[in-house]
Amino acid sequence: MRVAILAHEKFPSRAKTALGVLRYADHDAVAVLDRETAGRRVSDFVPDVQDAPIVAGMSDLEPDAVDTLLIGIAPIGGGFDERWREDVRTALEYGCDVISGLHYFLAEDEEFAGLAADHGCEIRDVRNPPDDLSVSEGVAGEVDADVILTVGTDCSVGKMTTTMELARDARAAGHDAAVIPTGQTGIMIEGWGNPIDRVVSDFTAGAVEEMILEKGDDHDYLFVEGQGSIVHPAYSPVTLGILHGSMADSLVLCHEADRESIHGYESFSLPSIRTYVDLYESIAAPVAESEVVAGALNTAGLEDDEAAREAVDDYADALGAPASDVLRFGTDDLLEVLC
Amino acid sequence: MRVAILAHEKFPSRAKTALGVLRYADHDAVAVLDRETAGRRVSDFVPDVQDAPIVAGMSDLEPDAVDTLLIGIAPIGGGFDERWREDVRTALEYGCDVISGLHYFLAEDEEFAGLAADHGCEIRDVRNPPDDLSVSEGVAGEVDADVILTVGTDCSVGKMTTTMELARDARAAGHDAAVIPTGQTGIMIEGWGNPIDRVVSDFTAGAVEEMILEKGDDHDYLFVEGQGSIVHPAYSPVTLGILHGSMADSLVLCHEADRESIHGYESFSLPSIRTYVDLYESIAAPVAESEVVAGALNTAGLEDDEAAREAVDDYADALGAPASDVLRFGTDDLLEVLC
Repeated sequence: MRVAILAHEKFPSRAKTALGVLRYADHDAVAVLDRETAGRRVSDFVPDVQDAPIVAGMSDLEPDAVDTLLIGIAPIGGGFDERWREDVRTALEYGCDVISGLHYFLAEDEEFAGLAADHGCEIRDVRNPPDDLSVSEGVAGEVDADVILTVGTDCSVGKMTTTMELARDARAAGHDAAVIPTGQTGIMIEGWGNPIDRVVSDFTAGAVEEMILEKGDDHDYLFVEGQGSIVHPAYSPVTLGILHGSMADSLVLCHEADRESIHGYESFSLPSIRTYVDLYESIAAPVAESEVVAGALNTAGLEDDEAAREAVDDYADALGAPASDVLRFGTDDLLEVLC
Repeated sequence: MRVAILAHEKFPSRAKTALGVLRYADHDAVAVLDRETAGRRVSDFVPDVQDAPIVAGMSDLEPDAVDTLLIGIAPIGGGFDERWREDVRTALEYGCDVISGLHYFLAEDEEFAGLAADHGCEIRDVRNPPDDLSVSEGVAGEVDADVILTVGTDCSVGKMTTTMELARDARAAGHDAAVIPTGQTGIMIEGWGNPIDRVVSDFTAGAVEEMILEKGDDHDYLFVEGQGSIVHPAYSPVTLGILHGSMADSLVLCHEADRESIHGYESFSLPSIRTYVDLYESIAAPVAESEVVAGALNTAGLEDDEAAREAVDDYADALGAPASDVLRFGTDDLLEVLC
């Protein structure tokens, strides 16, 4: 699939979805759309992901050079920025499909729906969960695959990245591994999945279970993308639904070096790493024997490798399990205990 | 408000909502509709709730004798039984409002919507959450009121009943107490509330917090209706959202005597009572210092009072806190530690 990725005025630092797709998806990235950095290339900013030219808009691309327009950014609130309308319109007129993770559903936009019908295109709003979801039956543990779930001390500590790095490296090592995507970036990278934070509360675990059952007998390892944290004042229900719904065998605890309070909720301190391990394992236990067997520490905030190595070692000590910064030091130590 | 309560073919044993309304709501029950037991009275079956005649249908009532039709039962799946259509139609033609907790939204039924418009009636689907909900800000702990939450070892162990009994008896003892309803029966009894199991997963805690903030400075005690269980394979996200969203001060652990496995999920054993106390308190702690201070044991399955008393005493020992069967032995011992 040849994709153009919309990231106006936000590439690269505030375009998490665009970067995730460039880093992990199998898609052939034809261009990034960013009117602010147009004329440069992805590699001018980020060296270790798929390279592509940056252009100002869809009309800079040839109609037959691209299959799909991906919305690679999300403004606060998840609304649609009307300054993107021309790009979406052009994409549909080119016959491209459009994939979006916005809370504003493009398929329900009258102009876009009409153009999609006229040009035979599909608009896929990945934040819009399927309407045939149901409650969990508590049977995810019956699949053949080993289920490995990333859990976190907070939001934005690297659960999606860790999941993708582990799955890719496991495959490279010859294992049959699949990703279970639970959020918009994971869904865009993998091309399928349920947006767990948007499903009806009662179906949170069921929407995860359904995915485990769909893939669990076709692979040896499932790497489940975790969300939030078990003690997050707002998002803990999503976290617990994924933990109980996946009935994971192994947990990888993700943390950011030096983070001490919950992001955006600074009056709430993070408990100790040991407390997180106990909480995740004890709340899982009546449903599944899930064990924290490894850790992933995001050390992006630490400049030199020596300090990062030290932080990772301290983290491994606190966990009582192997740890790594998966981007900085790779996944070998983790895969040794996971696969 | 003068209400008729629809409970066709299910009154009283399979009409939990109808019974809850008869037991706890301030409404004046004009009649129960049940074509199977028509001609008898509520008191022929249930002695300790509001009495009312049982009739076969709305057309047996005078148009000016009733203000509201309440759907007091829910078939598995929450669909609308077409054999109820005549009653709903008649109610709307009488000018009655209709309140329903079905998953099938009556306000979206073409015939009912038309009749409601013609006759100036309101159709209120209490399972349809408001669309202005949002994520929790983690501030429920700032309200003046003491927040008391019922939590459970499983579904259907008596959390709604315990909440209502405690709030009613606290008021009778002179305290300023309000109920925070989180499920369909509680919402029908109280006439307001958010159906937490139906809100978007991300908003689970936020939908509870919103209600606490709305009432928390106007009362001394808020009794929050809990849902599910923290280790339920399907519903645990709803439970955790209410726990973290309410930032409760005190927890009342509800349990049913002799229940050993999760209802409908019999391969999952209930952990020990001590484990439940530890799990609820430890998972709450990073967000709020919630403590299990009392227990409510449902002994409806035990015939004689002596065995029930013994079961309650054993339960109190296991908890290390006062306990009661609130219907059998009252709430005095609990209110002593709660208010």
